[in-house]
Amino acid sequence: METRPYVPWELMNSFMIDVFKCYGVPEEDAKICADVLLESDRRGIESHGCNRFKPIYLDRIDNGTLLPVTKIDIVKETPTTVVMDANDGMGMVASWHMMNKLIEKAKLYGMAGGTIYNSTHYGIAGYWTTMAEKAGMIGISGTNARPSVAPTWGIEPMMGTNPMTFTIPTDEEFPFNFDCATSTVQNGKIEYYARSGKETPAGLVVTQDGGTMTDSAQILKDMRAGKCALLPLGGLGEATGGYKGYGFTAIVEILSAALAGGPFMKELSGKNPDGTNRMYHLGHFFFVINPEFFMGLETFKKTAGDICRALRASEKAPGAERIYTAGEKEWLAWQDRKDKGVPVGESIQKELTGLRDRFDLPYKFPFE
Amino acid sequence: METRPYVPWELMNSFMIDVFKCYGVPEEDAKICADVLLESDRRGIESHGCNRFKPIYLDRIDNGTLLPVTKIDIVKETPTTVVMDANDGMGMVASWHMMNKLIEKAKLYGMAGGTIYNSTHYGIAGYWTTMAEKAGMIGISGTNARPSVAPTWGIEPMMGTNPMTFTIPTDEEFPFNFDCATSTVQNGKIEYYARSGKETPAGLVVTQDGGTMTDSAQILKDMRAGKCALLPLGGLGEATGGYKGYGFTAIVEILSAALAGGPFMKELSGKNPDGTNRMYHLGHFFFVINPEFFMGLETFKKTAGDICRALRASEKAPGAERIYTAGEKEWLAWQDRKDKGVPVGESIQKELTGLRDRFDLPYKFPFE
Repeated sequence: METRPYVPWELMNSFMIDVFKCYGVPEEDAKICADVLLESDRRGIESHGCNRFKPIYLDRIDNGTLLPVTKIDIVKETPTTVVMDANDGMGMVASWHMMNKLIEKAKLYGMAGGTIYNSTHYGIAGYWTTMAEKAGMIGISGTNARPSVAPTWGIEPMMGTNPMTFTIPTDEEFPFNFDCATSTVQNGKIEYYARSGKETPAGLVVTQDGGTMTDSAQILKDMRAGKCALLPLGGLGEATGGYKGYGFTAIVEILSAALAGGPFMKELSGKNPDGTNRMYHLGHFFFVINPEFFMGLETFKKTAGDICRALRASEKAPGAERIYTAGEKEWLAWQDRKDKGVPVGESIQKELTGLRDRFDLPYKFPFE
Repeated sequence: METRPYVPWELMNSFMIDVFKCYGVPEEDAKICADVLLESDRRGIESHGCNRFKPIYLDRIDNGTLLPVTKIDIVKETPTTVVMDANDGMGMVASWHMMNKLIEKAKLYGMAGGTIYNSTHYGIAGYWTTMAEKAGMIGISGTNARPSVAPTWGIEPMMGTNPMTFTIPTDEEFPFNFDCATSTVQNGKIEYYARSGKETPAGLVVTQDGGTMTDSAQILKDMRAGKCALLPLGGLGEATGGYKGYGFTAIVEILSAALAGGPFMKELSGKNPDGTNRMYHLGHFFFVINPEFFMGLETFKKTAGDICRALRASEKAPGAERIYTAGEKEWLAWQDRKDKGVPVGESIQKELTGLRDRFDLPYKFPFE
């Protein structure tokens, strides 16, 4: 049972748009950004929702590492591809324009791909792939991020948590939506553990002596200091497939940077050698595949749905309640929350009232 | 130190071509198939090399589940996409024609994608993605397979080991080549363990009571009987990310079947309900991305190479000798083997001499 108070979706959306505008984000862009953040909460992915509104977006506008006005340069464009320079503006705004372009291209050509460089945090990768899915296409996206993941046999945080995300249309009420970090856990999950006062499960982080740790707040501190690193999916060493997770993380690192020749890994720390802030210069990639250029969308959706249904109906382990397919939990979260609103914990409540008071905005929250 | 005898590459290649011809495979097709199998040995991936020559290809031609003459129907073709029906012929032959088509399309359009249905085992996925890489492009491929992997919280073998493979050009002597099953281990690895009399590491397989087992020969038997299943990358349950590996496996299952509306999962068992053999009807997918349509191949290769070099140079765990990047071990295997030839164990030696004697072919092997 959820014990945190809920804030109605429309109230939170309107508030976030107004606050973004106070920070200098143009209204049309503010609408995009608020929708991306709230979509994360709608899906129950609280690591990337309104808990990041202030620390990851507003505070970065304040400290100059994120520009509220997004100047987009189309550096190269062909019938099927786009290379975009986001000039350190809002990564979510650049990604929104990118996906609209790619969807139009894939309508005409069946396939399209794009990359953005000099960008900033683009929210949940699944927002972008879902734009493709809503247009009846397969969406694929990934992004690099601040280095926090060590390669197999390494201890140094080198790669980002680098999601590799697919949203795939089905004939069900919800798509197959696979949106997660290629590390076993990602920063946002540890931030969430820390915020909730919970320990991080053992074995997901490697320390400098090759051991592990569970103190979530300490992990965040040590990661910032480069003193511990997340492990790729598959865990420590090779015996349980850690090199496979490492491979996926590295693929995302390469595709996020190399298509544009942009920065990667240690260059994405957000810090200069003297400890001062610098621009993040993130890179993202996006691919769109149109099933109409294969055997048609209806055929595709039926087969994808049949696979999902058969997986869920397969034999469960003794004691297991349910087998899910990717995106189902997110859809269930939305079923639970759509009439209630977004649940906000105590620290986020303080951030929201603080912002309201700072800009003297005419909002009153249900938790007050 | 390798203790098995080596057979020179040219001798083995010529022998395999001749044997394929004796089985009714046309000479041009036999050359493709021998090269795919030997490429696996060149890379040190012995689970998919000449140890599979007889059991997975020749024996299936013998039992009628693989047709030696590959009749390819182009079911649909657009400037960027191809859908192919392989009519139960050699999956390697259909894949070879597919990749040549997609590379030509990606030269003109920057992106291309294809799918093959009614196909059979297509060898290492990395052979196809490397064709793209040799043409200066990114290759992505995957295939479904006989059901052997259970979904998270399930115990029933539902999905194939479903490789999701990327080969990415770099400015190094070898590409970034990520070619592995999305399960923690794959059938071929357990076949290799069984052939070598080795145990399978614990925790990679789930039994019907939710436990694990290590007897490699018994695992193969139980898997065939549907009494145990491989686990996806990330292992049992959700705490260590098993649902992420499950997601990747399911994505490959969907992309391998749904673009063509082809068969999937339980339909790919190769067996009828009465235990008699049936056609495998596998599906594969292929995507090609041309960096010249982004910021150029040289820029791409330099950045990809820089990322690989930085990963290998990063700080190692105490006691670790080396950090690898994907494809490096395969390249090192080739450096070791290129002058020596392909190492063949005792059981393969018997298969080779047996085939030679059966068809009265004029070959003498160094191990005789």
